[in-house]
Amino acid sequence: MRLTKAKLSLLLLLLTSFIPRAARVEDAAEALARVRAYRQAHAAEILQELTALLRLPNVAANLDDIGRNAEHIKTLLERRGIRAEILPTGGGRPVVYGELAAPGATTTLLFYCHYDGQPADPSAWRSPPFEPTLRDAAGHTIPLPPPDAPVEDDWRLYARSASDDKSPIVALLAALDALRAQNRAPRVNLKFLFDGEEEAGSPHLRDFVQREKDRLRADLLIVADGPVHQSGRPTVFYGTRGIMTVTLTAYGPAESLHSGHYGNWAPNPAFRLAALLATMKDATGRVLIPGFYDDVVPLGARERAALAAVPPIEEGLQDKFGIGTPEGAGRRLEELINLPSLNIRGLRSAWVGAEARTLVPATATAELDLRLVKGNDHERQFGKLVAFIRAQGWTIFDREPSLAERRRHARVIRVVKNGGYNAVRTPMDLPLAAQVSRAVERVAGAELVELPTLGGSGPLHYFDELGLPSLGVPIVNFDNNQHGPNENLRLGHFFQGIDVFASIFLWE
Amino acid sequence: MRLTKAKLSLLLLLLTSFIPRAARVEDAAEALARVRAYRQAHAAEILQELTALLRLPNVAANLDDIGRNAEHIKTLLERRGIRAEILPTGGGRPVVYGELAAPGATTTLLFYCHYDGQPADPSAWRSPPFEPTLRDAAGHTIPLPPPDAPVEDDWRLYARSASDDKSPIVALLAALDALRAQNRAPRVNLKFLFDGEEEAGSPHLRDFVQREKDRLRADLLIVADGPVHQSGRPTVFYGTRGIMTVTLTAYGPAESLHSGHYGNWAPNPAFRLAALLATMKDATGRVLIPGFYDDVVPLGARERAALAAVPPIEEGLQDKFGIGTPEGAGRRLEELINLPSLNIRGLRSAWVGAEARTLVPATATAELDLRLVKGNDHERQFGKLVAFIRAQGWTIFDREPSLAERRRHARVIRVVKNGGYNAVRTPMDLPLAAQVSRAVERVAGAELVELPTLGGSGPLHYFDELGLPSLGVPIVNFDNNQHGPNENLRLGHFFQGIDVFASIFLWE
Repeated sequence: MRLTKAKLSLLLLLLTSFIPRAARVEDAAEALARVRAYRQAHAAEILQELTALLRLPNVAANLDDIGRNAEHIKTLLERRGIRAEILPTGGGRPVVYGELAAPGATTTLLFYCHYDGQPADPSAWRSPPFEPTLRDAAGHTIPLPPPDAPVEDDWRLYARSASDDKSPIVALLAALDALRAQNRAPRVNLKFLFDGEEEAGSPHLRDFVQREKDRLRADLLIVADGPVHQSGRPTVFYGTRGIMTVTLTAYGPAESLHSGHYGNWAPNPAFRLAALLATMKDATGRVLIPGFYDDVVPLGARERAALAAVPPIEEGLQDKFGIGTPEGAGRRLEELINLPSLNIRGLRSAWVGAEARTLVPATATAELDLRLVKGNDHERQFGKLVAFIRAQGWTIFDREPSLAERRRHARVIRVVKNGGYNAVRTPMDLPLAAQVSRAVERVAGAELVELPTLGGSGPLHYFDELGLPSLGVPIVNFDNNQHGPNENLRLGHFFQGIDVFASIFLWE
Repeated sequence: MRLTKAKLSLLLLLLTSFIPRAARVEDAAEALARVRAYRQAHAAEILQELTALLRLPNVAANLDDIGRNAEHIKTLLERRGIRAEILPTGGGRPVVYGELAAPGATTTLLFYCHYDGQPADPSAWRSPPFEPTLRDAAGHTIPLPPPDAPVEDDWRLYARSASDDKSPIVALLAALDALRAQNRAPRVNLKFLFDGEEEAGSPHLRDFVQREKDRLRADLLIVADGPVHQSGRPTVFYGTRGIMTVTLTAYGPAESLHSGHYGNWAPNPAFRLAALLATMKDATGRVLIPGFYDDVVPLGARERAALAAVPPIEEGLQDKFGIGTPEGAGRRLEELINLPSLNIRGLRSAWVGAEARTLVPATATAELDLRLVKGNDHERQFGKLVAFIRAQGWTIFDREPSLAERRRHARVIRVVKNGGYNAVRTPMDLPLAAQVSRAVERVAGAELVELPTLGGSGPLHYFDELGLPSLGVPIVNFDNNQHGPNENLRLGHFFQGIDVFASIFLWE
């Protein structure tokens, strides 16, 4: 009988599972040193794998594009011997699912990432969003490195989803490769769930998770999404905010009218919408909608202590982003993130710039996003918003009002809620969490930032409903322009992320 | 000596100038009947001339397009034996100028039209803005009529500038043709000034008018622009509003930021701009900027009487445009037009609709137009706006602020004024005005609507400075979607406009 690589790796694994813990820690340190050496030697190759994936457009609206991404990722999984499937979700944006059992392991980790991305307006980007472009620390475009060439930590790769959230997928797989290269296998059973509609609010994920709950059984869900803390310290987060988006459309005249002949008489929907929006917040950004903060479950002592330990970063962010006075009346960013939010993410009425014309616009639209924290319910929070708008004298429709309806009412607005899911927050004293924190800290050699809640959202509520606790291990740089133009990934973060995932796989 | 057509026409003209007034009135009625017959017989031909002109894109920003329009119009003038020139204005958008002397005439009329148009976003149009499209009363597209085919009054021609303001140019020339066909010539000297930058605020017209004041000498300026009154009655207006546009850009973070990680902390420029806009007007649309209405020269007794005689149209407009409660606290539209206005003509921050992404935007922009009436000065009015914004706690820049400047100030806004000119209002008892009113009324057979001020603007202030009184003779339908998508011209209005201009040419 020939001793194949796979059999050898199995044998090693069986042996290591009998090694006492102290020895395993030492062994993990040794293994991690080799992981680092591997990913340094194969940096260009790993980068090639990432850029190939980033070249596939992944805006949620285009189902064909999403399908191509799913197929590509399935191939990447299979190339590692992971049993992979493309599982339909009902919305045309499937889950890519994979499993890799570790013989003898008693713990199962389910990793969650998403492979879809936010829309990207090429005109606002320095290079096309789906043509991954590498830039050096000075911002100059440089070619992708040839095989075996080294890369530098401060280089950045620009592309939609470079950070959010394709790079964690590639990092997870590279971490496996790095262990395999030293004939090691993970010490935990691994499951991978790659969502294809996260940026669209994961509207079909709840049903999917309910339907596949047996398959998804695990001890812990690890979310590989979001940025590390602005301080640059390794980060673990215990919760993510929920989210819903709402579109408000205020109505003026049925057709845009000449602003000379009708200005002063035809009601201007942009002015009316501005007046409504202005009543929603005070000058410090506090939301004035009655009951907006009522449902919030306060942080416990352990969470408050974790927040107090977070290094301050506000002054640096103000300098970086040119912010004179932040919202929040002087409260810490991390504290504010533990409150629900109300954000105008887009505003549009008629035209601006060279396209502007002297009209009273027919409509004015505001796109809102509302983030939710533990205790909020998206339907309840929406209800408060609707009641508030009605109390300002608006007649509300959830569809396009007819001409007669517009004629009949003084102020007409369409209010449409798009999707929504609630927040989750895992207790910080969860025993498995300590394992993950140690694994992350081991790599970075720096004190961990532990966040009760990440600012961003993720559809983790659906796993929470199954009793599956979750925590987040982000790997990408905070200044990644996530969701905006020129999204980018700092290579130092990405490659360290490979070490982080490998360290978790080497579960103590 | 052969009696050529031209010589015969000259002879007729010399004879008619000795005919007493009563006979001339009768003669004019006869002539007008023949004008009507002519333009009915040649309707398809006249429409061809109009559509050929409308096919030339004329957005002010594209100088090459503007040049092509100027050349085309010069050819149209020359085809009528009018001495025509293209006169540079300094901005690359020339004036097309023409003169046609009437032997023995003692009165000179200067006609003002403009051949440039507002921008047009094809995606918002039912048919491309520069492919003139004819539709029947039911809105169905129909082919342009072949030569000699009749046309119907309720058909509409859709194209940018179909109403504003190319059709009056073609109607003026068709009126000349219709007189020529019966061997008549105008009884007044005619001068034509066709502006190529009206929709851009005519920034070079003042210098042009000053420089060419000898050439432009006339007794009366007739503005052939704007719509007839909403009642459908023939209309003469005695003034036009002035205008300026202002761009406000409020600043948030230097780059758009993820609304989860930074929402509640990074100031949202859309909320801040909304709050500013909301303070500018009360719920009835009255402007709250201190002193906004202070400079207005009140209407005199004659003007107030003219307004009182205007048939009410507000209810009908509310039905047509689906307006529940107009601005103006119940005052008449025509009265409100005699006040300065403040209009949001465009609003933009980040993205809406399918393109929306969950960001705190970096900037938010409002495009304003401010109409001015007799007594206002655009610089003074702008000063009031700026003082008001400053009083709300904003730091104002007239250029892009630097990152350091954004960091230094709590609320940063860029305020840029684009052009501007003042209003004019000719006294309603001007003797020549009565001649024009009679000529218009003679055609329509209906009681005239006389407006002290048209809602729209025109750069007539520059002629006023030379002591040249002006009044306006609009010919196009009010519901023409001027400046908006699907601009259109009702053919009945256009063809009656030919009669109106011919009637004026037959000056009693």
